[in-house]
Amino acid sequence: MLTSALARSLLDATLAHAQQMGLKPLSVVVLDAGGHPVAFLRQDGSSAGRFEVARGKAYGCVMLGIGGAAQNKRAEAQPYFVQAMNGIYDGRFVPVQGGVLIRDAAGTVLGAVGVTGDTSENDAACAVAAITAAGLVAEA
Amino acid sequence: MLTSALARSLLDATLAHAQQMGLKPLSVVVLDAGGHPVAFLRQDGSSAGRFEVARGKAYGCVMLGIGGAAQNKRAEAQPYFVQAMNGIYDGRFVPVQGGVLIRDAAGTVLGAVGVTGDTSENDAACAVAAITAAGLVAEA
Amino acid sequence: MLTSALARSLLDATLAHAQQMGLKPLSVVVLDAGGHPVAFLRQDGSSAGRFEVARGKAYGCVMLGIGGAAQNKRAEAQPYFVQAMNGIYDGRFVPVQGGVLIRDAAGTVLGAVGVTGDTSENDAACAVAAITAAGLVAEA
Amino acid sequence: MLTSALARSLLDATLAHAQQMGLKPLSVVVLDAGGHPVAFLRQDGSSAGRFEVARGKAYGCVMLGIGGAAQNKRAEAQPYFVQAMNGIYDGRFVPVQGGVLIRDAAGTVLGAVGVTGDTSENDAACAVAAITAAGLVAEA
Repeated sequence: MLTSALARSLLDATLAHAQQMGLKPLSVVVLDAGGHPVAFLRQDGSSAGRFEVARGKAYGCVMLGIGGAAQNKRAEAQPYFVQAMNGIYDGRFVPVQGGVLIRDAAGTVLGAVGVTGDTSENDAACAVAAITAAGLVAEA
Repeated sequence: MLTSALARSLLDATLAHAQQMGLKPLSVVVLDAGGHPVAFLRQDGSSAGRFEVARGKAYGCVMLGIGGAAQNKRAEAQPYFVQAMNGIYDGRFVPVQGGVLIRDAAGTVLGAVGVTGDTSENDAACAVAAITAAGLVAEA
Repeated sequence: MLTSALARSLLDATLAHAQQMGLKPLSVVVLDAGGHPVAFLRQDGSSAGRFEVARGKAYGCVMLGIGGAAQNKRAEAQPYFVQAMNGIYDGRFVPVQGGVLIRDAAGTVLGAVGVTGDTSENDAACAVAAITAAGLVAEA
Repeated sequence: MLTSALARSLLDATLAHAQQMGLKPLSVVVLDAGGHPVAFLRQDGSSAGRFEVARGKAYGCVMLGIGGAAQNKRAEAQPYFVQAMNGIYDGRFVPVQGGVLIRDAAGTVLGAVGVTGDTSENDAACAVAAITAAGLVAEA
């Protein structure tokens, strides 16, 4: 289960990795297995609308059970896929890297981390590092 | 008419075919001729947001009177078509295979089955098998 | 966890209780702890728009962590509460009896059952009977 | 200015006050002067849909420049006011106590805290205590 303590710990670890990598200011959200926010932080210098970007990256992971890279690949191949997903998920769908699915060792989805602010690859790398360091499985 | 018993029977037969084919966990919805849900089941391991995907695949079938493959062909040719349909149908439109129209022998639309979880082709194949086995006509 | 088998079993037991009580045709949805549909059935004679009613009754239970009766009491006292909840939950909120929260013995929310078709009290009674018979705790 | 550090500090202080008061599990959001989330945490046992409630309480504070109690008074007197505000603010409006405006000593709005989970009065009391302890002015 994705406890409040685990969510905050994943959020802090994501930001710590970003600092080590010298990234730009980030916004990080942790969603539970139902797509509902458990923890969020927007760093100074991260622009006003970043909650929606971070949530949009993580939301599709949980709803579809796939990571941001797989969503992005699909979006590149079929642009109408993005439109269709935003229709059914009330506009909460941002199919780019930086949305990372969290699974336990048995493969059960616990939730997802959504990161935005630097390049999509760097955004994802921080979340992957945090999830892995917690002994969980990251699907970027 | 699409009775509750028929809807559940189509749903169960779709899942039975999927099991025979060794598919991933599926979600299956059966809509009536008005596009309204009659039966739905999400199997264990099918991700959280699959009701909306399944309904979106079936909804366009009933609303437009064509199967998922025809919708997909149109979406590939005219991406704006997806945007337009999602506008008029409140976002309930997912133009990919896996949405299968149900007709009786006389050609009357009884409803549609929407399947999601494996490849779109496999999703559709299960619904077609179930509809055909029930003595009805499937338009994938 | 609310498995697919448990969801269908709760759905069937709800309908069996309704039959014993001689109720009108019902529609029954079972949502998981994130508010996402797992199983749904609309009986013959249950009107076209019943999925949304059933889901709306169950959705508020999961989102707010209270049963339908508590939501109804609040709605009666503060009519604007209904408007506010429908605003934040995208219109998926029907604060009347027939939405019943499912908890395990430890008090953890597993999901909710939503029933519609007869009087709200009878709708709720069927779901409570089904949940209790499954060894779970019902919060009507 | 509402920095990320201040937002997290207000969030933590709100939860610390709640623990001292022995309140139920809470969800707390801190919005900036533009109504955009800076920090959020949902405690274990706080139900799935609490982000939207917390944000809805705080959003009206920032958008209208008044606290939750004043919004509630207006809602009680003019129920259509809630409908109107939810229309213009895309459904993000929950006019009850627990939304607390944050001002600096000069009266400038820095943002708002939104708290949900216990009684509305207790929700508000925690946020007021946190804001006041930070040397800022709370408008509940």
